[in-house]
Amino acid sequence: MVVSTLRERSGLGSDGLAAVLGQLEARFGQRFSRGLEIRRQHANTTTWLPNEPADAVVYAASTDEVAEIVSLCARYGVPVIPFGTGTSLEGHVNAPFGGISLDLSQMNRIVAVHPEDLDCTVEAGVTRKQLNEYIRDQGLFFPIDPGADASLGGMAATRASGTNAVRYGTMRDNVINLTAVMADGTILKTASRAKKSSAGYDLTRLLIGSEGTLGVITEVTLRLQGIPEAIAAGICAFPTVEDACNATILTIQSGIPVARIELMDALMIRATNQFANLDMPETPHLFLEFHGSTASVAEQSEAFGAIARDFGGGDFTWATRPEDRSRLWQARHDSYFAAKGLRVGGASIATDVCVPISRLAECVAETVADIAESGLIAPIVGHVGDGNFHVQPLVDLNDAEEIERVEHFIGRLTERAIAMEGTCTGEHGVGQGKRKYLEKEHGAGVGIMRTIKAALDPLGIMNPGKILPDL
Amino acid sequence: MVVSTLRERSGLGSDGLAAVLGQLEARFGQRFSRGLEIRRQHANTTTWLPNEPADAVVYAASTDEVAEIVSLCARYGVPVIPFGTGTSLEGHVNAPFGGISLDLSQMNRIVAVHPEDLDCTVEAGVTRKQLNEYIRDQGLFFPIDPGADASLGGMAATRASGTNAVRYGTMRDNVINLTAVMADGTILKTASRAKKSSAGYDLTRLLIGSEGTLGVITEVTLRLQGIPEAIAAGICAFPTVEDACNATILTIQSGIPVARIELMDALMIRATNQFANLDMPETPHLFLEFHGSTASVAEQSEAFGAIARDFGGGDFTWATRPEDRSRLWQARHDSYFAAKGLRVGGASIATDVCVPISRLAECVAETVADIAESGLIAPIVGHVGDGNFHVQPLVDLNDAEEIERVEHFIGRLTERAIAMEGTCTGEHGVGQGKRKYLEKEHGAGVGIMRTIKAALDPLGIMNPGKILPDL
Repeated sequence: MVVSTLRERSGLGSDGLAAVLGQLEARFGQRFSRGLEIRRQHANTTTWLPNEPADAVVYAASTDEVAEIVSLCARYGVPVIPFGTGTSLEGHVNAPFGGISLDLSQMNRIVAVHPEDLDCTVEAGVTRKQLNEYIRDQGLFFPIDPGADASLGGMAATRASGTNAVRYGTMRDNVINLTAVMADGTILKTASRAKKSSAGYDLTRLLIGSEGTLGVITEVTLRLQGIPEAIAAGICAFPTVEDACNATILTIQSGIPVARIELMDALMIRATNQFANLDMPETPHLFLEFHGSTASVAEQSEAFGAIARDFGGGDFTWATRPEDRSRLWQARHDSYFAAKGLRVGGASIATDVCVPISRLAECVAETVADIAESGLIAPIVGHVGDGNFHVQPLVDLNDAEEIERVEHFIGRLTERAIAMEGTCTGEHGVGQGKRKYLEKEHGAGVGIMRTIKAALDPLGIMNPGKILPDL
Repeated sequence: MVVSTLRERSGLGSDGLAAVLGQLEARFGQRFSRGLEIRRQHANTTTWLPNEPADAVVYAASTDEVAEIVSLCARYGVPVIPFGTGTSLEGHVNAPFGGISLDLSQMNRIVAVHPEDLDCTVEAGVTRKQLNEYIRDQGLFFPIDPGADASLGGMAATRASGTNAVRYGTMRDNVINLTAVMADGTILKTASRAKKSSAGYDLTRLLIGSEGTLGVITEVTLRLQGIPEAIAAGICAFPTVEDACNATILTIQSGIPVARIELMDALMIRATNQFANLDMPETPHLFLEFHGSTASVAEQSEAFGAIARDFGGGDFTWATRPEDRSRLWQARHDSYFAAKGLRVGGASIATDVCVPISRLAECVAETVADIAESGLIAPIVGHVGDGNFHVQPLVDLNDAEEIERVEHFIGRLTERAIAMEGTCTGEHGVGQGKRKYLEKEHGAGVGIMRTIKAALDPLGIMNPGKILPDL
């Protein structure tokens, strides 16, 4: 059994687990659970990967408690799987080797807001919506928006980004420092609150995107933005995905500081029309948002309009009032659920790749053709200003042949992106689902990653079975 | 002797060095030198740290050659000290344990420019001015400007930033991927050319700022910017440094996307007046630059003007024509040399710290008072939009008492910055000079850095004696 393999590797007997479970139960009482339903919820994969529950779930309330739990697990060689909101998409919270699901959702305090420095410090379980509601009255917002109301610790751990990244960057760019509990229970604060530093190795960025495999992130200090004076949103139909992509490319190249520029392909528009009872023309659309002063937003909108017209873009629907903007964007935000309506009873598998923007039109067009050839139902949405797009195949999880067809499709999509100097995942992370592509993308880099992992987590207890492929 | 200590630690006799020197000489011929003058030039510290030359200098022409040299040094446990242009400020290129200075300046090819993706790939020895001249005709520029015409590989290795960082970020934010030769000779390409990725550990950021202690950076892929439609520059006098800092703080908080906002204190203005025969009022000044469309630049300038008036700012001198802008900025760019004129025969020691911007006025004011109390001649310049400032004491290097006084002053400056949640270096790096402050700033983080260093460079041959304090 794989679980005992891990425990054997750490030189500890399988009764280590029993010791950990007993001590956690005695220590955490009501904040400890072995119930199957709770364990299953904590292995939520939102994808085809099988649900692999941990042996128990424990709810931590502070960094010190996380350190206590990790130290205990380290003593007995028991895996630790950090859990935020369970909205990750590649099996990040599964427990293929058993162990303890470490739930951080009760660590939801906003520790400090420094409006004068445009930063704040929050515990890992604070969600992005909770933070944004808290700081709105101070004229501030946190721009990273992956769609789901994810925890900010989880977003750091998976290097999340989303619709606003084209303007504001990803979690990589918006975390000033973080606190993490390392595999031996050490509490690490990665950096000061200075906006920049050249003082030593970038431990902040090492932990961002490490998916709990190097340490458990318990607190993050984030860059905030002032809410712009003006925001304008708009949608624009295009004859083909190439036209929509080419308009995007030229927009970025022209230096228009667009805040969001999102693609929905014709199939996704059809799904959205059905879901929300709309009547958008069933061709590819771009959804846009501009932030700035009133004058700057008008200037940006006009500059984009000229580009769109060159690529056959239709009339715009522009909106500046918050309620009108929300209505426009609702269609984009609903796309995940709208897509599910394309196939009653079908499960939705979200996958993503990212390519240099010059290759975007080609990559999307080839993918659309591949979907058709594969006989899949798979709409496309994308944060196309970054060259990042998602394909969302709808599958019958009871049909092994179809699942295999989707797996092969994702394999081709990933190889296509890598061949175009892109990456196997722009923002979802590796988890379990993308491990097999890591060698292809990183070559010798995988060996370096293994060396770092072995040095910082010699027992292999931190979220094992994620990121690094099996040897 | 320290050199043999290192070699003993690696289990190799001191005749390892002789073997390496012999083989390098045979292999590289004219591109190998043991001349004292050349070795001294390659240990240029631009500071008070003693010059500690390597045993030889070798000029590499390709990544493969770097791999060959590092592999050879690894075989015999001989240190490797990467060298770009020798403009670092904390003894980064010194060779306290001897070894080979690996000069990358002949690796100066611009490998590829992708205007459509706003990126380029260059060899490590390409300097920022060389790159900017090459891409100017395509309407592009690379914004990071640390002052010196440094090599881009060296800028990545020290996580350089400078005057434009307030708008465009630091090297951390502007390197898409890099190629490095690791301690065992492995050639590592850290990432794809996609603008973002969540595929595994951030090896790019791990190497940026690692100062040659984990690997030798041989190639970098950089983000480029379109040259703005309009650029306006201006200078503005303030009654006190607090006023200048407070105007800066409010400018940043107001979200004005200023491209540069630089402080020169009264003493530095006096030095500049003397050096360039100018007649600026001898009070603190801010030097600014705005980038954008014509309308946006006008809007930014007006918004800043209103803030400056609130803090007693004087009349502006604005310039939009390139030659007028250059003339304005020349005073700022000349400050390093101008400062040296404050003390004939004095050596200039540049040090830097960075604090959250809310603490900037306080930190600068306390530092000015400390300079006065210490009886030092030490003008201040700063990239104050980032909370980063430099103090440049002018010292008599033959006066041990004065050097000690400066060391104590820098110690207090550093502790002051760290106590204000800042960092011991915003952009110069640790090198040899700031090692003693690393524990104070990073605590447990230093242990994590040591673990990473030991795992990736088990023989300790990569630029030893830098960043990490002695145990």
